[in-house]
Amino acid sequence: MNSAQFPVPDGAAIKLAHQRIRPFINRTTVLTSQTINRMYNTEFFLKCENFQKVGAFKARGAINAVLSLEKQHLVNGVATHSSGNHAQALSYSASLVRTKAYIVMPSNSSKVKVEAVKGYGGIITFCEPTLESRETMLNKILKETGAIEIHPYNDVRIIAGQATAALELIEDFGNFDLILAPVGGGGLLSGTALSVHYFSSGGKVIAVEPEQANDAFLSFTQKQFVPSVNPVTIADGLRTSLGSVTFPIILDHVNNIVTVSEAGIVKAMRFLWERLKIIVEPSSAVPFAAIMEGKVNVSGKRTGIIISGGNVDLDELPWIMRHD
Amino acid sequence: MNSAQFPVPDGAAIKLAHQRIRPFINRTTVLTSQTINRMYNTEFFLKCENFQKVGAFKARGAINAVLSLEKQHLVNGVATHSSGNHAQALSYSASLVRTKAYIVMPSNSSKVKVEAVKGYGGIITFCEPTLESRETMLNKILKETGAIEIHPYNDVRIIAGQATAALELIEDFGNFDLILAPVGGGGLLSGTALSVHYFSSGGKVIAVEPEQANDAFLSFTQKQFVPSVNPVTIADGLRTSLGSVTFPIILDHVNNIVTVSEAGIVKAMRFLWERLKIIVEPSSAVPFAAIMEGKVNVSGKRTGIIISGGNVDLDELPWIMRHD
Repeated sequence: MNSAQFPVPDGAAIKLAHQRIRPFINRTTVLTSQTINRMYNTEFFLKCENFQKVGAFKARGAINAVLSLEKQHLVNGVATHSSGNHAQALSYSASLVRTKAYIVMPSNSSKVKVEAVKGYGGIITFCEPTLESRETMLNKILKETGAIEIHPYNDVRIIAGQATAALELIEDFGNFDLILAPVGGGGLLSGTALSVHYFSSGGKVIAVEPEQANDAFLSFTQKQFVPSVNPVTIADGLRTSLGSVTFPIILDHVNNIVTVSEAGIVKAMRFLWERLKIIVEPSSAVPFAAIMEGKVNVSGKRTGIIISGGNVDLDELPWIMRHD
Repeated sequence: MNSAQFPVPDGAAIKLAHQRIRPFINRTTVLTSQTINRMYNTEFFLKCENFQKVGAFKARGAINAVLSLEKQHLVNGVATHSSGNHAQALSYSASLVRTKAYIVMPSNSSKVKVEAVKGYGGIITFCEPTLESRETMLNKILKETGAIEIHPYNDVRIIAGQATAALELIEDFGNFDLILAPVGGGGLLSGTALSVHYFSSGGKVIAVEPEQANDAFLSFTQKQFVPSVNPVTIADGLRTSLGSVTFPIILDHVNNIVTVSEAGIVKAMRFLWERLKIIVEPSSAVPFAAIMEGKVNVSGKRTGIIISGGNVDLDELPWIMRHD
């Protein structure tokens, strides 16, 4: 059965997801900074999913999806194609229920990411770095192994899991005027928007996307799906297209999508490292870039930001020009 | 009156310091990591003073010292010589009570640190990069301005302030088998040891120092003060000598001092960045280096670590060889 056929998660489904994953995730720290509050005349709350298991919010959705499967569906393992945090998250989730995780990764994936997936016990198959090759290889593996595919975002179990980050933020700190999240495939964004809808009153959800990967922005403003075609952005978690499950939720529950420049992303990333003393990956810096670039006015508003992850290659920092 | 003449802080003095500084400091997050727990068969608690005001525990002591001064002693400002976090901490503390902070900094101080001190309103005077020049310049300024000197560590008000980091850790998480802290001048270490002594039962305090700046190790093992002479270590916060106030407290209340290699410090720093997703400065990585190098056996022990600060120049990371 296609997961897309399940209904959109309601409040109860998100609460159930939270109950299910709670023993296996971190209830992540929320950081505040009076310096930043003063700079922007606001009250910021940063939900630090970079401190989450596997270093990103993706653990929430993947664990919820895997734990939602009945035992007889777990025997042959789970599978996905991913070059990023979902690969680690699914590998970690599979290890929790002692099943296999088959991960299709493009042959040009960074060594750091390959090692991380291996570290969590994922079984990697490499393929050509094209979407077509990824899908072909994944289908081959699904057929051969009988594993169940867990899509990185276009799945209501994943969305319900990702929704728990905003749920915790709201449980811990009450209502917000604004909650900002990055948007790639829309799993985190749609989950966040659902939690704001069900668990708080009147808060606005603003998504932020790289200008150079603005398919969600275009889809949202045109109210019609626009795919992401080979976007060039440092925010590697945000290069994907919206999905058939995430897009309608976003249309219904997200208030606005704005875009930011590549230079702005790097500047925001460095700012968060320097001032908050946290390692955030480029995708995580995208919402803060919108504030720094004046794309979102937070003045006088209680503002929550989901810091989505902290997986970066420390040998390759965007502000350090190397001359190797 | 020389601050060294005040008595060593007792439990009440530390509690009073905490009450005094509480409105102006962060009650910093304590991070845990099951991955690291598994690696070392222990339960780690990292008290993240890198999230403290000015990015380091130094804010605690400096604020306590400044707020301990009577109003008439504040009119002419406060002063110190420091190239590091104490300079920022004292500048910040002075701004809280709207007085001046005169900071003597060596002319070779990094731009980042100079800018940070200026950012907190400190009034900088540069001097030659020798201890003699720093002291001569500071004395000149004290004489000219009537400002009161606040020493970075050899002062019971500073020690009582630094003690509040361990106090909070113990208040939040109870007893520890081991608490590890880095040692430079001994302010944080002596404060930590006093808090463990007064507020917990049976915990051991282990100090860690760079091998290449092992004056505290030598002083401790020989029970006789050995000065630090031009040590070469990346842990720039730990290059100073113990003080006449800190050394006796350390002899009385610290259980052991161990040393770690420079390579070990860099490795531990990178490990904490990669796995904990936090920015820690080299000095802060020193205790964890002792665990990674097997100098402290934490197996089966509940272990607290004070992460002292997170002020690093992000353009100059020790694992990135630059070829400019």
